[in-house]
Amino acid sequence: MQDARIYPRGGLDVLSRVEVARLRDASSGGMHELLRRCALAVLTSGSASDDPRAARDLYPDFDIQVLQQDRGVRIDLLNAPAMAFVDGEIIRGVAELLFAVVRDLAYTAIELGPEYAADLETSAGITNAVFGLLRNARILRPADPNLVVCWGGHSISRDEYLYTKQVGYELGLRGLDICTGCGPGAMKGPMKGATIAHAKQRKRTTRYIGITEPGIIAAESPNPIVNHLVIMPDIEKRLEAFVRIGHGIIVFPGGVGTAEEILYLLGILLHEENADLPFPLILTGPTIAAPYFEQIDRFIRLTLGEAAASRYEIIIGDPVAVARTMTAGIKRVREHRIAQKDSFFFNWAIQIPQDYQQPFAPTHEAMAALDLHHGRQAHALAADLRRAFSGIVAGNVKEEGMRRIEQSGPFEIHGDPDMMQALDALLRAFVQQRRMKIAGEYQPCYRVMA
Amino acid sequence: MQDARIYPRGGLDVLSRVEVARLRDASSGGMHELLRRCALAVLTSGSASDDPRAARDLYPDFDIQVLQQDRGVRIDLLNAPAMAFVDGEIIRGVAELLFAVVRDLAYTAIELGPEYAADLETSAGITNAVFGLLRNARILRPADPNLVVCWGGHSISRDEYLYTKQVGYELGLRGLDICTGCGPGAMKGPMKGATIAHAKQRKRTTRYIGITEPGIIAAESPNPIVNHLVIMPDIEKRLEAFVRIGHGIIVFPGGVGTAEEILYLLGILLHEENADLPFPLILTGPTIAAPYFEQIDRFIRLTLGEAAASRYEIIIGDPVAVARTMTAGIKRVREHRIAQKDSFFFNWAIQIPQDYQQPFAPTHEAMAALDLHHGRQAHALAADLRRAFSGIVAGNVKEEGMRRIEQSGPFEIHGDPDMMQALDALLRAFVQQRRMKIAGEYQPCYRVMA
Amino acid sequence: MQDARIYPRGGLDVLSRVEVARLRDASSGGMHELLRRCALAVLTSGSASDDPRAARDLYPDFDIQVLQQDRGVRIDLLNAPAMAFVDGEIIRGVAELLFAVVRDLAYTAIELGPEYAADLETSAGITNAVFGLLRNARILRPADPNLVVCWGGHSISRDEYLYTKQVGYELGLRGLDICTGCGPGAMKGPMKGATIAHAKQRKRTTRYIGITEPGIIAAESPNPIVNHLVIMPDIEKRLEAFVRIGHGIIVFPGGVGTAEEILYLLGILLHEENADLPFPLILTGPTIAAPYFEQIDRFIRLTLGEAAASRYEIIIGDPVAVARTMTAGIKRVREHRIAQKDSFFFNWAIQIPQDYQQPFAPTHEAMAALDLHHGRQAHALAADLRRAFSGIVAGNVKEEGMRRIEQSGPFEIHGDPDMMQALDALLRAFVQQRRMKIAGEYQPCYRVMA
Amino acid sequence: MQDARIYPRGGLDVLSRVEVARLRDASSGGMHELLRRCALAVLTSGSASDDPRAARDLYPDFDIQVLQQDRGVRIDLLNAPAMAFVDGEIIRGVAELLFAVVRDLAYTAIELGPEYAADLETSAGITNAVFGLLRNARILRPADPNLVVCWGGHSISRDEYLYTKQVGYELGLRGLDICTGCGPGAMKGPMKGATIAHAKQRKRTTRYIGITEPGIIAAESPNPIVNHLVIMPDIEKRLEAFVRIGHGIIVFPGGVGTAEEILYLLGILLHEENADLPFPLILTGPTIAAPYFEQIDRFIRLTLGEAAASRYEIIIGDPVAVARTMTAGIKRVREHRIAQKDSFFFNWAIQIPQDYQQPFAPTHEAMAALDLHHGRQAHALAADLRRAFSGIVAGNVKEEGMRRIEQSGPFEIHGDPDMMQALDALLRAFVQQRRMKIAGEYQPCYRVMA
Repeated sequence: MQDARIYPRGGLDVLSRVEVARLRDASSGGMHELLRRCALAVLTSGSASDDPRAARDLYPDFDIQVLQQDRGVRIDLLNAPAMAFVDGEIIRGVAELLFAVVRDLAYTAIELGPEYAADLETSAGITNAVFGLLRNARILRPADPNLVVCWGGHSISRDEYLYTKQVGYELGLRGLDICTGCGPGAMKGPMKGATIAHAKQRKRTTRYIGITEPGIIAAESPNPIVNHLVIMPDIEKRLEAFVRIGHGIIVFPGGVGTAEEILYLLGILLHEENADLPFPLILTGPTIAAPYFEQIDRFIRLTLGEAAASRYEIIIGDPVAVARTMTAGIKRVREHRIAQKDSFFFNWAIQIPQDYQQPFAPTHEAMAALDLHHGRQAHALAADLRRAFSGIVAGNVKEEGMRRIEQSGPFEIHGDPDMMQALDALLRAFVQQRRMKIAGEYQPCYRVMA
Repeated sequence: MQDARIYPRGGLDVLSRVEVARLRDASSGGMHELLRRCALAVLTSGSASDDPRAARDLYPDFDIQVLQQDRGVRIDLLNAPAMAFVDGEIIRGVAELLFAVVRDLAYTAIELGPEYAADLETSAGITNAVFGLLRNARILRPADPNLVVCWGGHSISRDEYLYTKQVGYELGLRGLDICTGCGPGAMKGPMKGATIAHAKQRKRTTRYIGITEPGIIAAESPNPIVNHLVIMPDIEKRLEAFVRIGHGIIVFPGGVGTAEEILYLLGILLHEENADLPFPLILTGPTIAAPYFEQIDRFIRLTLGEAAASRYEIIIGDPVAVARTMTAGIKRVREHRIAQKDSFFFNWAIQIPQDYQQPFAPTHEAMAALDLHHGRQAHALAADLRRAFSGIVAGNVKEEGMRRIEQSGPFEIHGDPDMMQALDALLRAFVQQRRMKIAGEYQPCYRVMA
Repeated sequence: MQDARIYPRGGLDVLSRVEVARLRDASSGGMHELLRRCALAVLTSGSASDDPRAARDLYPDFDIQVLQQDRGVRIDLLNAPAMAFVDGEIIRGVAELLFAVVRDLAYTAIELGPEYAADLETSAGITNAVFGLLRNARILRPADPNLVVCWGGHSISRDEYLYTKQVGYELGLRGLDICTGCGPGAMKGPMKGATIAHAKQRKRTTRYIGITEPGIIAAESPNPIVNHLVIMPDIEKRLEAFVRIGHGIIVFPGGVGTAEEILYLLGILLHEENADLPFPLILTGPTIAAPYFEQIDRFIRLTLGEAAASRYEIIIGDPVAVARTMTAGIKRVREHRIAQKDSFFFNWAIQIPQDYQQPFAPTHEAMAALDLHHGRQAHALAADLRRAFSGIVAGNVKEEGMRRIEQSGPFEIHGDPDMMQALDALLRAFVQQRRMKIAGEYQPCYRVMA
Repeated sequence: MQDARIYPRGGLDVLSRVEVARLRDASSGGMHELLRRCALAVLTSGSASDDPRAARDLYPDFDIQVLQQDRGVRIDLLNAPAMAFVDGEIIRGVAELLFAVVRDLAYTAIELGPEYAADLETSAGITNAVFGLLRNARILRPADPNLVVCWGGHSISRDEYLYTKQVGYELGLRGLDICTGCGPGAMKGPMKGATIAHAKQRKRTTRYIGITEPGIIAAESPNPIVNHLVIMPDIEKRLEAFVRIGHGIIVFPGGVGTAEEILYLLGILLHEENADLPFPLILTGPTIAAPYFEQIDRFIRLTLGEAAASRYEIIIGDPVAVARTMTAGIKRVREHRIAQKDSFFFNWAIQIPQDYQQPFAPTHEAMAALDLHHGRQAHALAADLRRAFSGIVAGNVKEEGMRRIEQSGPFEIHGDPDMMQALDALLRAFVQQRRMKIAGEYQPCYRVMA
């Protein structure tokens, strides 16, 4: 274990006295435990375990203090993991991730603090907050579109992981940069593959952007390849960040979370105002993952219809085809942005309805209010499907959700029977494929109310 | 004359939709005429006349529009001076100065707008505003102290101008950067000399910072060497900016304005809280300018005492000595900042009393309220001396002041006779040396009230 | 398969007409087959097989032409491996390696051609040729010593390979660059580990230097991490290049070739003129490799004495200790070079006796002329031991050597019995450990003549 | 005066021991006095006098030694001019020019030494030597054509000097780099103007190339703007260097030397093999210089015919037109080079006949051998005209030539009377315009032999 004093750079080095004071206050007040946890996740980045919870047990005395100096900010680390240091000096990349943590938590505390709460009640206000955070993190730069967002599970099979590396390699060979959720698995593989390809292409400016949020980073250390880390305040703003800065999205196999993300994105793309917006979306995996995407595809066609299915392409076992399709798609995005005079670095044009920007708490009331019937507008239905999905998962595997079910019985969901059966089938398949881990036999936690 | 569309870079290229809209509103509303005048000054930078008023007569139809695009901001120029263009394309350096104008006026309109008026009523609030403007202009960077502020007249003799170039050359040879008021004369010479020296020393990152304000830029185009331009909202914030970012100040011969600036700076340095602060201050000129500094020196010793005189060094006709003394002084500043953990790029430690941060309007009442007696605290006396000076100059040469005198008779100033006589002698000397230009015989515009 | 036209950069782009003509002649004349083989090795760099011989079978119609243009050189590739291309364009890093091949073969053909044969007959002349080739390859740059040469086998166990990666990682964390023989195994692992560490330390200028020679590159493709490739004309100049540019050497486990390299280096270091020269030399491997180094250590102590053993350090299973020891050793090298005014980038001071600079052909006559008795000067004895070693290996596993033994019976070697027994024991151990691969039972191919 | 030790960079820092030894020998042997004089010229670069001869009187004890160290080369300066130093350290740009002097004299001594004399007897060999020197000086780089060579007098009128600055300014605004003979006057003005323009256009990589030769640099210090200095071995190679690397040539007013240069260039361009080669050539000056160009134009039309006159354009008093015409001309050069696959950085295609590559000694025999009659091939006649010119100038103003005339009477020149009269008229005009300075009345030093 190691103590250290660190002097931040890159934005945190030119602060006013007032800003430094606010930063110090924020980090010693209510934000302190959050800061401590995120910092620890970053300091154990690249550890074998990939599990920051283990880290928390290993380093119970770890602490971090942000101190004010006239020259700027000083960060003091106490009992920090030795793995972040070399011969007493912190590894530079780790220090950069640490500055990112302080920077983003400070921004959130200061710029999105209680006094600006009203701004965050409108859709435009939320988008503005996402923009502000990303700009402050220096993610937004005027340059040709080349950012591919990769989604997928953090605990995938070895074959699936190797496949994500191969896809990353082919993307990297074509000069594309990678943005992921910054954990292990499908969030690490594409970056790793792209790193090798970028080196071979002698690409000097490379971006491996990891976008996370406090709940996730506490469970998943950023992988060590990430060279730009952003911590968004919550899951919804993190999802919006992906959609606004990515020029295309690739979805690798994952668990139920990945399925939810697909529904989130399709819901947005199905909104009529987004109908003409090019947005390359590819679902891909090795042959072994073909059933996963087939089931999802079938479910989508049944519930949201063919229009929804036309927004994505499924490619199985062909990394080169994925990279070529994505390159062609991004070319169209570039042309569209130029024609519309939209910026390259932030997708202002895409409409994200306000209910997609707000969290969903799966109470019995909320679940009973869902409306899963054919004939609704696709984007509204997609939103409710995502919520249903989210609630059922909670009821099956999340502590809070399981407690609710125990107390009040199964959720009552209103929906057309075929839709509900499809949902059920999909969940059972996930359980069979070990993509949703439950103890004992799968037992639906809901009842269908026609 | 030429029309053009320009797409800004360097900060103006990553704006949110809200910011772009505010910028467009600000520039088409009350700020428009100011923007038009400042833009014209910049577009005629380096013209032979150095007189933007002439430019305004030459280009009566010139106009500028700031337009919103999703991709960011577009600036449209109409009937702009051809001299800013080469074969239809705007000269890149001129474009950068133009972006600076838009950037700073926008910042002032948005960040220092009416809703923040309260912040600007405290000394700390004003300092914070100065900091914010300078940081937004990307002037503040963590780097070793090397910035020399040069003050002096804009219409000095050829000998004096050549001397400022030589001093700039010697400063440049020693790796120092230059900051001035960005007009001609003593504001241009040091930059020009430093440019040659920097080229000879193969210095690649050079800073020729011009700090101006709307009233001044409308009368004095930035010289074409300036590569960082900042437009502060008023004279007092401009003076504070000089004091906060300069690591030392050199004063060349000038007119009454220069004398006022010396009193401003001495007043601050004499404040007891600044007593231990190293701040290299050199008054220098060629042999021909010796009398100018002797008179000022004599006046200061008589009014403010030896302590005041100990804060500066007068060096006549020796550019090498000036550069060596400044280099040694900045070395002490560096050591002091490190010891005090103060930043290199902004002098937070120096106390600027609030009455130095606020404008002075020389009415009869204000002049009668001055208290020019021995025995007062030096910094308070210096402030009143500067005001007296300012008022008398106004009464003699400025339209508004002369009208007041005509209407209400001479100012009545309360002060010790010896002090008032010294003031009178100084002003007469300036007139003789043609440093204060008046029509006809010099006639004091004030009466001394013991 | 793919045809392509490539226009070289980086030295090959500013050639005179005469040089271009000579280059074209050299590459179409006797050098053509060599060029073809080396080019193919480079174009299949990073392939799974790592065996260019397979590549030659796969791409029998591959050809390369160097053509003259007034603008410089054009390289035409015919039927080249598709893996070197992305969507029809050659991968930039592969192109760079290809230019290196053309550049070095051309230099060898032109600057070390028959007309300069006399220069290559002196020790100084050979060293000069090594210098010339390395400078032409832009390997020699004035910078702080930080280059670690890593030796070891190309087909090592998985455990040993992972260990070389870990050592490379620890070296990279400490800012050290890597130079190897540029093939797989111990030549790839350290580079791979260093790549990750350099990325984490945000080191922008990284050097992964591969030094090879025509015989070796034809059997071992450069690994894809190599970003500086040099092809020396023969094995002895390649060894000299390692010794002259490395600031320290790490030896990982390998086969008999690695043992030979250790003897080569020790022989040089034992030369009395090199007695005071600091030269960090570390033998290291994971626990599983401990016996390998123990046997070598025992053999060296017996034959060359304790003085020889004092020139190296054996570290088992501790990558951090290896990196720290090397860092400390290079610090001493730096101080010594400064004190001696020797260059950082080329070790002029180390004496390499001429018999170390010349190839050894293991004929029966040459083997009989060896003198392996105690009491000889250590560096002379080391040279003969290395030759004995080389001859015995040839007699056991190389086609040509085995034929000789078949035709003329075992070599007769003159030496002290204990020394010969030790040699025998060492070889048997290598066979047991599968580090020397022979068909059937090990059968000594020599007789000891007391 | 100042002693100093300097450690060269940029090519002189990576030398072999042999090269260092040769360099030391060359600089201490026959080359030493030449090195001393050139070094002194460089160390007084930018001095007011611009006359290195004065420098030699001022610094009689100045000496320079090139010393060998294992690390490379050390240059020792003894009693060097203080103006080259700042607070004891040599100005970096001056040091670079000094390295250039050592580098080029060493190259000439080593690579063009006696053993290679035979190579220099062919036209191709001479061109190769010119190429080698320029490449070694790192002047040749693959980049878009943008290099304008400016010729003209070193002692021109103030008006003419200011005009050269304005032209340089307009060239610089259009991104063009400047190459001159590196002395004062027309060799300095264009660089100075371009410097300001390049700064305004924020051009970061700028080239102000000065090409000189030992006889000239000893009389004309390089001006301080030069950032690439090359010392060619003699006048003819210097002229060839201009022609090979310039993408266009501008001729400002000058004296007889300038007229000779025009004849040199026209002679080459009139060679039939160069007939289709685009080569922008502009003669230009302020209104006051109009007569100079009119006379030259008239003379050329009479002697060499309209074809010769069609190779240049005369532009009077219009810097913008000059820059635009040159930009358009270089665009054609670029297209032609691409079409012909010729290099951008060296004009291999232009034929320079061998008699243009060799010096002319104006003896009575040589002058009598001239053949100035109509009807000859234009390029042969141009060559003889240039020689006649050169001889007559020598006979009138050069010590050696005047002595010859005194001893052996006027030269006898065979030529058509009208051509000789035109020559005579041109020379008389130069004398009248004070462009050829003679003592007393102009007296032709030749007789015409029909």
